[in-house]
Amino acid sequence: MKQFIHVQDVLTPKIKHTGTAINQLVEEALAYKANPLKDKQLGSNLRLGMLFLNPSLRTRLSTQVAAANLGMESIVFNVDKEGWALEFEEGAIMSGNTVEHIKDAAPILGSYFDVLAIRTFPSLKNREDDYSELFINQFIKYAGVPVISLESATLHPLQSLSDIITIQEDLLHKGPTDTKKPKLVLTWAPHVKPLPQCVANSFAQWVNAWSEAGFVITHPEDYALDTQFTIGATITHNQTEALKDADYVYVKNWSTYHDYGKVYENDPAWMLTNERLALTNNAKVMHCLPVRRNVELSDEILDGPNSLVTTEAGNRVWAAQAVLANIIKTLKQG
Amino acid sequence: MKQFIHVQDVLTPKIKHTGTAINQLVEEALAYKANPLKDKQLGSNLRLGMLFLNPSLRTRLSTQVAAANLGMESIVFNVDKEGWALEFEEGAIMSGNTVEHIKDAAPILGSYFDVLAIRTFPSLKNREDDYSELFINQFIKYAGVPVISLESATLHPLQSLSDIITIQEDLLHKGPTDTKKPKLVLTWAPHVKPLPQCVANSFAQWVNAWSEAGFVITHPEDYALDTQFTIGATITHNQTEALKDADYVYVKNWSTYHDYGKVYENDPAWMLTNERLALTNNAKVMHCLPVRRNVELSDEILDGPNSLVTTEAGNRVWAAQAVLANIIKTLKQG
Amino acid sequence: MKQFIHVQDVLTPKIKHTGTAINQLVEEALAYKANPLKDKQLGSNLRLGMLFLNPSLRTRLSTQVAAANLGMESIVFNVDKEGWALEFEEGAIMSGNTVEHIKDAAPILGSYFDVLAIRTFPSLKNREDDYSELFINQFIKYAGVPVISLESATLHPLQSLSDIITIQEDLLHKGPTDTKKPKLVLTWAPHVKPLPQCVANSFAQWVNAWSEAGFVITHPEDYALDTQFTIGATITHNQTEALKDADYVYVKNWSTYHDYGKVYENDPAWMLTNERLALTNNAKVMHCLPVRRNVELSDEILDGPNSLVTTEAGNRVWAAQAVLANIIKTLKQG
Repeated sequence: MKQFIHVQDVLTPKIKHTGTAINQLVEEALAYKANPLKDKQLGSNLRLGMLFLNPSLRTRLSTQVAAANLGMESIVFNVDKEGWALEFEEGAIMSGNTVEHIKDAAPILGSYFDVLAIRTFPSLKNREDDYSELFINQFIKYAGVPVISLESATLHPLQSLSDIITIQEDLLHKGPTDTKKPKLVLTWAPHVKPLPQCVANSFAQWVNAWSEAGFVITHPEDYALDTQFTIGATITHNQTEALKDADYVYVKNWSTYHDYGKVYENDPAWMLTNERLALTNNAKVMHCLPVRRNVELSDEILDGPNSLVTTEAGNRVWAAQAVLANIIKTLKQG
Repeated sequence: MKQFIHVQDVLTPKIKHTGTAINQLVEEALAYKANPLKDKQLGSNLRLGMLFLNPSLRTRLSTQVAAANLGMESIVFNVDKEGWALEFEEGAIMSGNTVEHIKDAAPILGSYFDVLAIRTFPSLKNREDDYSELFINQFIKYAGVPVISLESATLHPLQSLSDIITIQEDLLHKGPTDTKKPKLVLTWAPHVKPLPQCVANSFAQWVNAWSEAGFVITHPEDYALDTQFTIGATITHNQTEALKDADYVYVKNWSTYHDYGKVYENDPAWMLTNERLALTNNAKVMHCLPVRRNVELSDEILDGPNSLVTTEAGNRVWAAQAVLANIIKTLKQG
Repeated sequence: MKQFIHVQDVLTPKIKHTGTAINQLVEEALAYKANPLKDKQLGSNLRLGMLFLNPSLRTRLSTQVAAANLGMESIVFNVDKEGWALEFEEGAIMSGNTVEHIKDAAPILGSYFDVLAIRTFPSLKNREDDYSELFINQFIKYAGVPVISLESATLHPLQSLSDIITIQEDLLHKGPTDTKKPKLVLTWAPHVKPLPQCVANSFAQWVNAWSEAGFVITHPEDYALDTQFTIGATITHNQTEALKDADYVYVKNWSTYHDYGKVYENDPAWMLTNERLALTNNAKVMHCLPVRRNVELSDEILDGPNSLVTTEAGNRVWAAQAVLANIIKTLKQG
């Protein structure tokens, strides 16, 4: 693995099918969960530089823990708080507020670290800019070392890998019940603020690439996601219909994609409750966290027996560890 | 030791008397001071997560150094600056400013780390809320791993343990002079801002539990502390009387407890000077730091031969190391 | 080496000539570049405390990497963001905004760490205050352990050492062409904000002490630097003349020294372009970064074959490693 930005990065010279490659990565992650220190020497004398242009709790800490499990040192740098504003536009005349160009910062960071990881967020103001992924792409272009996305403007691949690990783990616990593919539902949920589409985009991209589940997306009319990610899924505006017989319900808010970054809808009817959960096949409920309790998702669900959210967040460590291990192995092969 | 929040946490299955348990812990701390790396492998492959909802210098750094001395990795997370506002109330409808509930964050942190440490402060606005210790109690309730207080709304146990280590160490230096218990005075001092009662509460709680010193508390009339901590001490509003024959004078400001969080008094006469120190038995002077020089405590005292403040702050490392070692040993016993 | 604040700190009991001592340090740095882990055990069980009163990217990260290469643990503390305002004035009555006196903080940090490093900035408001270097001098006075400057009010020695390493390395690549000393030009460049004189002062101080290059400084009339640093250099207000036959051009903005901290001039004619570079002996171009592209220095230079800026920033690691190694060796000799 040379980078970890979108689902295609899971492909290897030997494995050309995303579903197979994802299953391989999930297996490696679960092996780390069973034995966190089995590759304690793999990252020895290697350094991971972690740059944050935006806040992060789970992603930062789980990746640091994963690195430590591999004997790799990680150093965190909060660019927004400990540093200064970076410029990403080519040819900019930097007489404004940006202090350093990514063209100057990235190669130096690449000389200090063996692997870099970066978190950026979308502006939610200009769709074209956000979906061009300028920030992370410029960073990759100039860094000269492997780059891991800790969430970018439109995707959150470490989250999606953790999500699939969590589903796979749950399916393994259940054992082989029948040959039917599990039904997986991604449902929009209300929120008080406009949020990125990253988690929803990325989850759709990964589930479609994984192709081991039936996949339905449900959201209010104005909340259609970019079809490059959703293609392959069934889409409905009827949550009731979507939830029927679901085995896994992934709950997440996102702001509008077409009329970009808006909050059109806040109908609490979209919030998952036990009453709505009764429509499903006793579905397990997932969320990437942080979650606004009793706005996005009810206490009764989060504190109930069907919630997988803590397991899912815990699995972030094993996802990051599997990805880091793959990147280190590729590095060592030169 | 399963947690380190209040003085009762020093008790062990074998030692049921707080004074004995404190002396045992002090002895262990002084053994680390003599030989910091004697348990270099004890914390190997264990991780300490340190969460700060408020700023910290000595507490953060001394605890990180203590962890390193035990071969334990520590990771710092400034929740207030690197993360987002946490919700602590059960059943909250999170449509306001709080982004994540402690019920969701704590168990995940507990899955990433073997031991957690947290610093919170009181609001100084609502006494009942502060004294309910909601924040740290909710954290303990949901973390699922041992929790160390790096100062909570009402107590600061690592500070108090360091204070007693410092006194004990000084007594050992003096050698057995006579059989009289040393006289220990906690005196209120002026300050420009309303400060928490934590250090004073905690010092009183620990000295009373230690019971190896005569203990006098002196403060202006309106500054009575919560009796649950002070019970056992002699209390007087006459500083002159209190200082008489004192062997150790602990200087600290706190805001009012009854009419909560107020600054009623700022009389510089309460500031300790060499003139006032002359009333004592050549007493050693202590303060937890940071100290407002020439407001809380005069330069002549802080820079004079009777000040123990640097020793006291240095001992923070050995206090934290003894506590961490005890918690690790309990963890390993399963 | 007992501290690393100004160029004189390179002198050793055996080497009394700064040029020789600098060359020795450069050689050690280049040996680390060739073999970063050759002294992997040197800093084992030692701790570096890094304090930032101002933001830092390269200095912080390169020093942390250098410490790790020596097996030394580093802990970062952003005093301005994670702590509180420090007081530096002797005898201050601390009833204002400063929370802790350096007299109290420094010795404690010295008890927690084996070596301390600190970054402070000038106010650019009061020249006398800034040039007294009160902050770093007070820190050194009270720390009780070796102190490394990560940039102070008037100097930036780790940068200057990296600069000379970079020049020396480039000269070694070229091989012995003739016996002429290389011509080195420090040129002022435009900027939108008033910047410290540190990098320019320090570069002048080091190049003059190194004395292995002909040295010319060029700047607009009002931008004369303090002569204590520039003495020995040829100074001209004519950039064209200065650039003639130059082998290395060091580009940097600074604010006025005499009428202190002002921006008098912003003439883009002072910005180095390929056209102006043509005046030189195909000179290599240097800058300490961060650089305002197309304000201080043009894209065509920064992205062209003559730029050494990335190499120069990369060499920060080896400069810091050579300095840390020297300080550790002195520490171990007791």
